[in-house]
Amino acid sequence: MGRSPLVAALDIGGTKSSAALVDAAGRIVARVVGPTPASAGADATLDSAARLVRDLIDTRDGSTAIVGALGVATAGVVDPRSGRILSATDAISGWAGTDVAEGLRRRLGLPIAVDNDVHAHLIGELTAGAAVGRACVLLVAVGTGIGGSLAVDGRIHRGHGRVAGHLGHVPSPSGAGVPCTCGGTGHVEAVASGPALVRAYNRRSARLPADLADVAARATTGTDAVAADVIWAGGTEIGHLIGGLINVLDPDRVIVTGGVSACGPGWWAALLAAADADVLPPIRAAGPIRHLVVPSVLGADAPLLGAAELARTLAT
Amino acid sequence: MGRSPLVAALDIGGTKSSAALVDAAGRIVARVVGPTPASAGADATLDSAARLVRDLIDTRDGSTAIVGALGVATAGVVDPRSGRILSATDAISGWAGTDVAEGLRRRLGLPIAVDNDVHAHLIGELTAGAAVGRACVLLVAVGTGIGGSLAVDGRIHRGHGRVAGHLGHVPSPSGAGVPCTCGGTGHVEAVASGPALVRAYNRRSARLPADLADVAARATTGTDAVAADVIWAGGTEIGHLIGGLINVLDPDRVIVTGGVSACGPGWWAALLAAADADVLPPIRAAGPIRHLVVPSVLGADAPLLGAAELARTLAT
Repeated sequence: MGRSPLVAALDIGGTKSSAALVDAAGRIVARVVGPTPASAGADATLDSAARLVRDLIDTRDGSTAIVGALGVATAGVVDPRSGRILSATDAISGWAGTDVAEGLRRRLGLPIAVDNDVHAHLIGELTAGAAVGRACVLLVAVGTGIGGSLAVDGRIHRGHGRVAGHLGHVPSPSGAGVPCTCGGTGHVEAVASGPALVRAYNRRSARLPADLADVAARATTGTDAVAADVIWAGGTEIGHLIGGLINVLDPDRVIVTGGVSACGPGWWAALLAAADADVLPPIRAAGPIRHLVVPSVLGADAPLLGAAELARTLAT
Repeated sequence: MGRSPLVAALDIGGTKSSAALVDAAGRIVARVVGPTPASAGADATLDSAARLVRDLIDTRDGSTAIVGALGVATAGVVDPRSGRILSATDAISGWAGTDVAEGLRRRLGLPIAVDNDVHAHLIGELTAGAAVGRACVLLVAVGTGIGGSLAVDGRIHRGHGRVAGHLGHVPSPSGAGVPCTCGGTGHVEAVASGPALVRAYNRRSARLPADLADVAARATTGTDAVAADVIWAGGTEIGHLIGGLINVLDPDRVIVTGGVSACGPGWWAALLAAADADVLPPIRAAGPIRHLVVPSVLGADAPLLGAAELARTLAT
């Protein structure tokens, strides 16, 4: 094989970060999670991330020589060739411009590959999840924001300025005028992200303020019509987004993931109904929409497994 | 070179068909146009198309040996490997299922390559037009219908079932409930195609019924506020479509073509303003939207030049 038996993977998020050791068969053999010191800035975040990797290695023989390379998944627009963050929100203070590859190389002395966390998620699904053997795959991640990633011929499509995949910033059929996090208005993210669903519920409901888990639970019990309606409307929005993009891209798989995708069967039923109503007849004729549009099978492991795959390309 | 000096190209449309001879430098050296006997069916359409090619060849020395191959651009979902029409509207009666490659091979005795006309248009632009040297290109064709084509890494993205590029069937921010030609509702084509703009004008205006050229002319003179508003709204719809797809795909060029794109400066200004409002900050920061989103430079020649390029791959 010539492959190192183990690679390390990091998933650096705005609130917590995970590190894992992944074996040659793609199994996570050790894992650790810690808070991200996001408000303390980029250096503190890199210190903390490096410590997670070192802690993991210490549980083995304590030498970084046991891992061949480290792959990193992180929020933001990433240049995977340089390992630099080209742009990012302030979820991690000062993250934009950070040279993640160099910063972690200096701290750990390992070869480092860096990619955007949603692209890493899709690489994970392509390697070991719901997209194995698929050529054109759309990943739709619905959480605090709405993002995504597209694979064409099995390879991540990054776009000219490495900005591709911002699915949340497509105009919504019901969002006209609603301010979006990007500075624009009327985008799907403005009406169908987790925070947007919570805002819609709390605006319309006479009950105590709720978070997303509350709204989802109230919708699922069948006793809160406002909650059920908000969840249905959110799923419908994502279904229209997916249906339209299916007509543009004709993928052989669409994977839906993220916190909002755990909102229960009402959200999924609305999503599938809206997508099915939008797709063109030859796509509908090819098979049931639920065979084309599926949940992630790897969940939160996907970005780590994708990052491990990136590391493996360095370690071989 | 080992290349035939000339190839033949056909563009088979629902109302008229064009044939051309194209030299090794990609110049159209002869051209003929005739009506498509669309209601008479597929065999009559192929007879007529073959006659156009033969007429052109007769203007030279009369032997098909002067052309190395024939490339064909046609409406419908095409399987470019078999040269068959997988599905199509009834613009040409019985066109769906027609083996265009075999039908023309039998009639002309030439090697034949067949592709969808919008994909052929983009191949033309990539070879000799507004997309030369570009990697990720979105073509948006706004006419009687709204279609498109996407190139990734300079190659046409056809999708799993060869259905990719149906840009008109993305949900519109202002079309909720409006019936679409595809059987769905609320799609961009339902509110921003040529016929949709004409319907909107004739519904709202007290003046004599108009066709698209009338509406465009009345909008441009500045004396018909309804016409100006309809044209502005149509351009705005296409701008939102393009802005959203730029955020998903991050192309290095978007080319806009089709009859509606000749509706004048109001339509274009609305399109660019809406697209600019939708794109994410890093895309806006990369340069003015009018440098990213441009008109076709080849116009109606593009499908013929794309078809010629397909023929050239057979003739080499």
